[in-house]
Amino acid sequence: MSGNTFGELFRITTWGESHGPAVGVVIDGCPAGLLLDGSDIQKELDRRRPGQSDITTPRKEEDRAEILSGVFSGKTTGAPISIMVKNKNVDSSKYEALRNTPRPGHADLTYELKYGYRDWRGGGRSSARETAGRVAAGAVAKKILSHFGIEVIGHVVELGGIRAKAVEIENIRGNTEKNPVRCADQYAAVEMEAMIHAARSESDSVGGIVEIFSIGVPAGIGEPVFDKLSAEIAKGLMSIGAVKGVEIGAGFRSAIMKGSQNNDPIIICDGKPLPVTNNAGGILGGISSGQPIVCRIAVKPTPSISKEQGTVDLYEMKETKIKITGRHDPSIPPRIVPVAESMVALVLVDQMMRGGFIKTSIIG
Amino acid sequence: MSGNTFGELFRITTWGESHGPAVGVVIDGCPAGLLLDGSDIQKELDRRRPGQSDITTPRKEEDRAEILSGVFSGKTTGAPISIMVKNKNVDSSKYEALRNTPRPGHADLTYELKYGYRDWRGGGRSSARETAGRVAAGAVAKKILSHFGIEVIGHVVELGGIRAKAVEIENIRGNTEKNPVRCADQYAAVEMEAMIHAARSESDSVGGIVEIFSIGVPAGIGEPVFDKLSAEIAKGLMSIGAVKGVEIGAGFRSAIMKGSQNNDPIIICDGKPLPVTNNAGGILGGISSGQPIVCRIAVKPTPSISKEQGTVDLYEMKETKIKITGRHDPSIPPRIVPVAESMVALVLVDQMMRGGFIKTSIIG
Amino acid sequence: MSGNTFGELFRITTWGESHGPAVGVVIDGCPAGLLLDGSDIQKELDRRRPGQSDITTPRKEEDRAEILSGVFSGKTTGAPISIMVKNKNVDSSKYEALRNTPRPGHADLTYELKYGYRDWRGGGRSSARETAGRVAAGAVAKKILSHFGIEVIGHVVELGGIRAKAVEIENIRGNTEKNPVRCADQYAAVEMEAMIHAARSESDSVGGIVEIFSIGVPAGIGEPVFDKLSAEIAKGLMSIGAVKGVEIGAGFRSAIMKGSQNNDPIIICDGKPLPVTNNAGGILGGISSGQPIVCRIAVKPTPSISKEQGTVDLYEMKETKIKITGRHDPSIPPRIVPVAESMVALVLVDQMMRGGFIKTSIIG
Amino acid sequence: MSGNTFGELFRITTWGESHGPAVGVVIDGCPAGLLLDGSDIQKELDRRRPGQSDITTPRKEEDRAEILSGVFSGKTTGAPISIMVKNKNVDSSKYEALRNTPRPGHADLTYELKYGYRDWRGGGRSSARETAGRVAAGAVAKKILSHFGIEVIGHVVELGGIRAKAVEIENIRGNTEKNPVRCADQYAAVEMEAMIHAARSESDSVGGIVEIFSIGVPAGIGEPVFDKLSAEIAKGLMSIGAVKGVEIGAGFRSAIMKGSQNNDPIIICDGKPLPVTNNAGGILGGISSGQPIVCRIAVKPTPSISKEQGTVDLYEMKETKIKITGRHDPSIPPRIVPVAESMVALVLVDQMMRGGFIKTSIIG
Repeated sequence: MSGNTFGELFRITTWGESHGPAVGVVIDGCPAGLLLDGSDIQKELDRRRPGQSDITTPRKEEDRAEILSGVFSGKTTGAPISIMVKNKNVDSSKYEALRNTPRPGHADLTYELKYGYRDWRGGGRSSARETAGRVAAGAVAKKILSHFGIEVIGHVVELGGIRAKAVEIENIRGNTEKNPVRCADQYAAVEMEAMIHAARSESDSVGGIVEIFSIGVPAGIGEPVFDKLSAEIAKGLMSIGAVKGVEIGAGFRSAIMKGSQNNDPIIICDGKPLPVTNNAGGILGGISSGQPIVCRIAVKPTPSISKEQGTVDLYEMKETKIKITGRHDPSIPPRIVPVAESMVALVLVDQMMRGGFIKTSIIG
Repeated sequence: MSGNTFGELFRITTWGESHGPAVGVVIDGCPAGLLLDGSDIQKELDRRRPGQSDITTPRKEEDRAEILSGVFSGKTTGAPISIMVKNKNVDSSKYEALRNTPRPGHADLTYELKYGYRDWRGGGRSSARETAGRVAAGAVAKKILSHFGIEVIGHVVELGGIRAKAVEIENIRGNTEKNPVRCADQYAAVEMEAMIHAARSESDSVGGIVEIFSIGVPAGIGEPVFDKLSAEIAKGLMSIGAVKGVEIGAGFRSAIMKGSQNNDPIIICDGKPLPVTNNAGGILGGISSGQPIVCRIAVKPTPSISKEQGTVDLYEMKETKIKITGRHDPSIPPRIVPVAESMVALVLVDQMMRGGFIKTSIIG
Repeated sequence: MSGNTFGELFRITTWGESHGPAVGVVIDGCPAGLLLDGSDIQKELDRRRPGQSDITTPRKEEDRAEILSGVFSGKTTGAPISIMVKNKNVDSSKYEALRNTPRPGHADLTYELKYGYRDWRGGGRSSARETAGRVAAGAVAKKILSHFGIEVIGHVVELGGIRAKAVEIENIRGNTEKNPVRCADQYAAVEMEAMIHAARSESDSVGGIVEIFSIGVPAGIGEPVFDKLSAEIAKGLMSIGAVKGVEIGAGFRSAIMKGSQNNDPIIICDGKPLPVTNNAGGILGGISSGQPIVCRIAVKPTPSISKEQGTVDLYEMKETKIKITGRHDPSIPPRIVPVAESMVALVLVDQMMRGGFIKTSIIG
Repeated sequence: MSGNTFGELFRITTWGESHGPAVGVVIDGCPAGLLLDGSDIQKELDRRRPGQSDITTPRKEEDRAEILSGVFSGKTTGAPISIMVKNKNVDSSKYEALRNTPRPGHADLTYELKYGYRDWRGGGRSSARETAGRVAAGAVAKKILSHFGIEVIGHVVELGGIRAKAVEIENIRGNTEKNPVRCADQYAAVEMEAMIHAARSESDSVGGIVEIFSIGVPAGIGEPVFDKLSAEIAKGLMSIGAVKGVEIGAGFRSAIMKGSQNNDPIIICDGKPLPVTNNAGGILGGISSGQPIVCRIAVKPTPSISKEQGTVDLYEMKETKIKITGRHDPSIPPRIVPVAESMVALVLVDQMMRGGFIKTSIIG
């Protein structure tokens, strides 16, 4: 039990169910003196928000962040920051039919088997809505990182089998938010969008791959041997619902490379030693090298589809069929981008604190 | 700092450098009353041991486990189990030349940048030798799991680009230890072995993929939302040196599947609900479903190669070249198998304790 | 940073400032299936509430608990329970004058020195109001303990130098809540009440001692060697503001006893071995013995007094004088009773989970 | 389970039984670049060592510390420091008789009830011998603190009812190690020594009180609200066997003080605000104020006495009598001094790291 907290020194605890009164997060360990207001958080929540475009669920939520503690006259005090997002536009009626029939690919079955009692409305605690708290906390983490010149940006690199071309970091920064799929390759973006519409029209869904860059991370971040920067990132990203794989740098490609291809030679750059290529993804021995941190996640296709699927009736304990109606994204990657960025940002701040890079007070 | 401990309730702390007096582990949280002797640990250490075949490093180490505490008259007492493995057959002379020249693909550079002072002999703390402690602890975890009918077995599924055929679990159990590459597909094993010899003769190295099955895990293990079973496994596996990717179930393949293909329909099996296929890899919403837990890791090619590579001289702060001599495995996957099994076994025991499945005393 | 979480498996995180919008707590690790509603929590909050009698601060707060998550149709689901108590009847105007003049005996000075920026209204995070979250969580812990026949009850045993007579546990249960000082000795209670009025009339305050009994705790709870039951209780109790000492069993008295007086002989009671006296306070080697757990805390006199005191003006950095006006309890012990009970109850539930005594689901 | 680790960032894990092959500690989180050799540790172990004078147990142990990792060429590397102390001069024969008869006041009974199986030789894990690991780790902590001008010194202030006079810190520093009872008041020391001899001759034992000063601690250390400096110190000290009470500053005396007496007025000292008296014991709101940290512990009389005591035979489950023979200190306070200092030093280093006062590397 008690798995709802993430981080050691910069530590977040999320709470809330999809159809309960609210969801939220408590952020503990934020340094004092950080300028912070609702708009810092709202900006990121809006990127995660349902109903932001025609390829997401039509559940329209304002997702307005209320800061309940830890901020005084526009600056953090070092006390825990409690943020609440009320649940509105909730319709539980569609879920009545699913009460006893766990949806394939969802957590309904395992929550039932583990707890023996669950909130069946809208996925309850296992709903993607839980990530609102992560994104709110991620916004605070990003604000801290910006003080150190660190930026975390994600983009969709593959969706429904369509691969984006590799682009420069400037293009990721510039293009990603220009299209609803959050793909930096604008041509691929058009194809991906069409693919999502096609999947929806077939009562189906598609998965994809998201890449997250962390730029400006100084060398020396990460705590070997178990709390390696790579290990903590892997945990953070794999803890997001629908994520089934995580890789760093060359990742699974490194399995088919020779050592002479995969090793990044070291050069001197601005008077400092630095790997010249980045197959390592910016991490060696679990510690940042000064290169950008690069990671990718495999996102499974949305399990909620309106095609007929086999399941069981847990009350009568017999096999049956279901078709899932309700409002669902036919593809998760576009909206998972801010969530994945948040998890990486949370890890970076936590590890920087563990290494003594960030102190109790950001001012002075 | 302080990243050398893994687990919450079943908690291990490893210590030791490659060329120091010894390496070891302290296992805290083992239930009392477990029959345990040196042979339980030795058996697993022998699978990890260097020099076990002609495809591994010729560094010949006995790797004899000494149990220093926590076991009394052949049974555990609930007190911490301290296990030490002395370092023998150590030759630091080859490393003198590498003192100021970090090896590409290794942690030399990042340890230097983080700590400012390091044990440069044999990779010091970042040496693969550190995993001896993990394997010793994993042996204890496996012994506990066996009381619950749970088995963790790994095998090499890809090496140097050669893919093994999918085989039944009985074949993995029966064939894996019959060949030095630990591949259950005996034909592929022969090719893989040849590939390793070829890489060595070219002064190069090859990577691969290892798969780990956990069979017999009951439904209900895992602590959402951050300490999901999948998230903890991802952290554990990614914390092993040379691992650059982790996937669960269909993993990265799920990114190109449709929801209707990827979802595992649920049936009734022996009176209980169970997913009938296993794209989820036995985990839904971070909780075990009763299906086998399936995970795979991408292992990069050994960074220590005798080809010439570019690096820097940290003392003179100028670019230079190195050729790494010394004794190294040309391919890591065969010997990483017991390490990966150990990490998964450690996570399972810890999560079973967190869920209250295992109590203070295994007897009574 | 990040010290706002207490417990390992049953884990609470409190948040909120005295004059902010609300205070609250997130309880993580509560088993599923526990019957819980607002009244369980309200009952305990009412015991902590300001304005409950004429010996407490006249700040009148309803302190109404809102459960925002983790409870569905009257039962817990195993998900985190978020509880919020809005701050009402807040008057920050009195604090304007104290903005730059730290109050002696308060945390104003040290928060300023640590964080460099603080919410100076009403003590901010260091206000006793923070304990509302502890008491709300303690109410949940007590509900869980009641399933195991365990009861945690506290009472004031000394106040302003007046000592209560030792009474039987039945009298503590029966009498404590009958008088505003929460003293089980009704005669002493009258004197204590008079003492509080006298202190107030002298613009001063008085301290005291509170004793907490835990009855029905089974043998075997506690995790040596650092997380001893006694050590965790000591931490929990010492973390309450105004507590300056903690003792278990004979406590400081044991320092003047002989071994032959202090040792509790062991007898057989209902077929089980049990210490016959209880100088050990129910804990031996950090593990519960089956006897009641007995602990006592020293509570300092309220630092907020209206007598003139020396302090410094932090803005002008020169010495000055203050008289603290506003609404304050002249004696803390009566209202600290439910807080101390809560901390002990939280430790007991957490340690029972760590020992595997409590599982994921309380039902079934 | 798993309670053998102490600290968050500077984290120690102790292991070992009294009559096993060795006891030891793994220190994780020590910054790199600290000059450290065996003599730093030996010096403190010698203060804890049995047989150091005629008032301690005659068990003569060399207690030689072996550093097995984390130190390279005389300096720490940031890797875990493993220290082992072999058990010599062990005689288990005396304990055969105590196998089934738990000693009153000892942990024998509760270990049996918790684990169902225990190492009955010499107290096993609950032996005072476990503290050798704490003292070895404390020596490292003290070395780190000395870099920041912080000193932790303890002394016996009461023994067998004899109270030492309050003396200046210079006298504590100068006199404590001059007499075997470690009392800074040389006259009281003579009486205490006589008291110990008297207790031994009566087959009995005596308790006492130890005070620990931490001098030079900067303001701002401690993490409210649960991980207050006072709370962590209370946990650390209460986790030592035989300790039954902990107080900070005026402690239990503050319960009988008025607010106007107990509050420490604030003055300006060397340009900084500082409490002028120290009833708070250097901690306000859980954060250090810049004043010395003052804490005291109540130490119970040694439970091992040769007087006849009532106990039970667990095998036959009937009441019986025992006289404990073997080699025991008739009074614990003199030898607990270095252990208590160690626990306080460990907390200080950990909390300084948590606040970002200490970085990964002590050099540069």
